Amino acid sequence: MSTAAARVVRPVVAIHGGAGTLSRLTISPAQQARYRAALDEILRGAQALLADGASALDVVTEAVRRLEECPLFNAGFGAVYTADGEHELDACVMRGSDLAAGAVAGVRTLRNPVLAARAVLDAGGPVLLIGAGAERFASERGCEIVAPDWFGTPERLAQLRAVQAAGAVALDHDGAAPLDERDKFGTVGAVALDAHGHLAAATSTGGMTNKRPGRVGDSPIVGAGCYANDRTVAVSCTGVGEAFMRALAAHDVSALIDYAGLSLHEAARRVVMDKLPPLGGRGGLIAIDAHGKVVLPFNTEGMYRGWARVGAAPVSAIYADEAGPEPL
Amino acid sequence: MSTAAARVVRPVVAIHGGAGTLSRLTISPAQQARYRAALDEILRGAQALLADGASALDVVTEAVRRLEECPLFNAGFGAVYTADGEHELDACVMRGSDLAAGAVAGVRTLRNPVLAARAVLDAGGPVLLIGAGAERFASERGCEIVAPDWFGTPERLAQLRAVQAAGAVALDHDGAAPLDERDKFGTVGAVALDAHGHLAAATSTGGMTNKRPGRVGDSPIVGAGCYANDRTVAVSCTGVGEAFMRALAAHDVSALIDYAGLSLHEAARRVVMDKLPPLGGRGGLIAIDAHGKVVLPFNTEGMYRGWARVGAAPVSAIYADEAGPEPL
Repeated sequence: MSTAAARVVRPVVAIHGGAGTLSRLTISPAQQARYRAALDEILRGAQALLADGASALDVVTEAVRRLEECPLFNAGFGAVYTADGEHELDACVMRGSDLAAGAVAGVRTLRNPVLAARAVLDAGGPVLLIGAGAERFASERGCEIVAPDWFGTPERLAQLRAVQAAGAVALDHDGAAPLDERDKFGTVGAVALDAHGHLAAATSTGGMTNKRPGRVGDSPIVGAGCYANDRTVAVSCTGVGEAFMRALAAHDVSALIDYAGLSLHEAARRVVMDKLPPLGGRGGLIAIDAHGKVVLPFNTEGMYRGWARVGAAPVSAIYADEAGPEPL
Repeated sequence: MSTAAARVVRPVVAIHGGAGTLSRLTISPAQQARYRAALDEILRGAQALLADGASALDVVTEAVRRLEECPLFNAGFGAVYTADGEHELDACVMRGSDLAAGAVAGVRTLRNPVLAARAVLDAGGPVLLIGAGAERFASERGCEIVAPDWFGTPERLAQLRAVQAAGAVALDHDGAAPLDERDKFGTVGAVALDAHGHLAAATSTGGMTNKRPGRVGDSPIVGAGCYANDRTVAVSCTGVGEAFMRALAAHDVSALIDYAGLSLHEAARRVVMDKLPPLGGRGGLIAIDAHGKVVLPFNTEGMYRGWARVGAAPVSAIYADEAGPEPL
């Protein structure tokens, strides 16, 4: 892209591990440190890839794969349980240079849903594959298959039992997490701008504890929970999926920049603070624009998040009052 | 809505039954007349509902239910076959007054996918349900269940065999249809503005003949193949689903009106003629804006389509040179 090539680009990556309500009283500094350390390690890995000239698409795919592998976060290993005591996973990746996208939804046996989504993108045919058809495709493309119970952890099962005992229908994340389990949205995601000026986004989730089987949220939906366009912005969302779908949250940030001429900061603020709340859209998003600006807004009390520019120390944060002003 | 109530509204409905390449040489006037008669009958029914004060949501739901029941169109009864010789159906409905939406994808036993989507919307919880979970939910809500082979017709099965023999992977509609079977996108949809000034949209599809099992296109995706917002526009799309998903075609029409200040005509033209073709996005859309203007643009040689204002004769058309200028 000539516009990208003409720009002096300092590569940057941002990641998130879900948003929710603050409950500092119930957690220890050691627990917070565990989350921060996980975020920092994944940021350092992504930063190293960017410094080596990796593409934004490769960087977000790998960052989300590592978030999936980390049991602290509700995606891949450590995903929450459905009402039927199973796991149904969703993921999406999108490349900003040509709007190529790949997504899977409702998969139960793919170790890394984001790698399956990436295989869908790379194949260049369908954009969204669901259920057994998605698993068959990913298996043909060499993605690792695991038994459906591979994703389970004792913490998540205890969480399902507690939620079911309370008669609740939509919670997530683990009982010892810094964010309150009654109001925590456990999606993971990454956005990046690479040295070539290209943007990419990836999002992955285990859904919501005790969710109705077959329910799909915004994470695997292009323009809802995941979007990248070199003209404008890369976005990954986390929150009450239904509101993000009805608001087309990720695409709306792009459209506000593209058509209304808003800055990244103002476009993201308008979506997260003005447009989502009337729809019940608690949550947040991470976004990097074509100039390398970064925002990580949320309307909950906290969001696991971090960002790293090549050549600077990674920054991670959980609560709203941490880490100073948002980076831009 | 005060803005809607203050407006003098003349209710209007538009429907489509898919877009594709012209092949007038191979079809008879009698075949064309069959399609036109089916469109006209459904338009008259929708017009009567609107004249009785029915909501836009009820009108588009019923119009699409009738399109599903008609074997001429690739949705519900008469849907095309997947590569596995089965049927996987998708549908979405959206209400413009509050952005409420409901959708189902990959369902095999629901006689009318649009009624299942409507049940999802009415329940007010999840927006998108897929596969067996969607079927279970719809059954609980009283939707009619049929055997998976209920959707099959000899014409569609012959079409699958022909496509498979030719080694093709993505076609649809029946061999005797006015639009060329090599390039026909068999989605159905409806948009309406009711007497109360509210907009709604509905879209339903059987997908593409010989499609990979698990492939979901734009039809059930809010903002891709279906969108309604009283502030702007109601849109239903038909075409190469992947391009419409990557372009967020339906939401983009809304955003261009909302943020760029474009007219309905210019916004729809820009999406269908400028933005979709570079992504391989052959197809079209129908749209009605908050002022009751109607457009039905397509970049293929034909689209089964029609519109009807309360108090005026319905108009239906197949080819680009029929029915005079678009209505506005």
